[in-house]
Amino acid sequence: MLIAHVLHDKGEAVHALPANATLQQAAQELLDKRVGALVVLDAEGALMGVFSERDLVREVARLGPAALTQEVGAAMTRHVITADPSETLHDCLSRMTDRRVRHLPIMEADRLIGIVSIGDLVKHCIAAAEAESAALQAYIAAQ
Amino acid sequence: MLIAHVLHDKGEAVHALPANATLQQAAQELLDKRVGALVVLDAEGALMGVFSERDLVREVARLGPAALTQEVGAAMTRHVITADPSETLHDCLSRMTDRRVRHLPIMEADRLIGIVSIGDLVKHCIAAAEAESAALQAYIAAQ
Repeated sequence: MLIAHVLHDKGEAVHALPANATLQQAAQELLDKRVGALVVLDAEGALMGVFSERDLVREVARLGPAALTQEVGAAMTRHVITADPSETLHDCLSRMTDRRVRHLPIMEADRLIGIVSIGDLVKHCIAAAEAESAALQAYIAAQ
Repeated sequence: MLIAHVLHDKGEAVHALPANATLQQAAQELLDKRVGALVVLDAEGALMGVFSERDLVREVARLGPAALTQEVGAAMTRHVITADPSETLHDCLSRMTDRRVRHLPIMEADRLIGIVSIGDLVKHCIAAAEAESAALQAYIAAQ
């Protein structure tokens, strides 16, 4: 199963922030959108970085209350691990566990077309395994 | 594959906090231990709740800088979704995606014996699938 299928089911909606949003605003946006990470885009819509729950934890640990007035552009993860829609779920899950990230922005020719979380991919893997098992049982029952 | 096998490989170490630690201390502990969730234990070592990155985000969004002097006992998740060491990885991954949690404390007869993350379980599933595939290829090559 390919990432393109996950995006097809999930939709291409990406929750984004500008780099000059504060960490306080980012926390509110993470809560409101019920997501674990937001993408940070420049004025042309190009991907500058990702701001995740983990980035908030690190900045709060490091700076205390002063972290919350800091700008997302200074606290986001800039070296973003991404994926391509033609990759398999298995390859993306391997990359996520190796690199210890829980979100992968999906890029097609330098254009951001979506984001998937480790939970999205696990859910699709489970659904695929259950469909395969049901098909096998139906085949056996029909013999 | 069972949760007991994951705990055997990973070890039973659980990073814990007392309920009177502040959210600032919790953020530091999440960062230092490089984990996404901590268990909150009472004086007898019984599980009172879980404090995760997501709990920190919610409290910061809700209270701003005042969140950081709050006690973990007031901000933790009390209705903890747990698992049993005899459960399969598949069942636990299903529960995690259904309930939208990324950590499962593992309980044996009301005693906390470990904690697993969605990343731990995915890593073990991938390793198991790769071992199965390698065994199958070796079998075919030997024919």
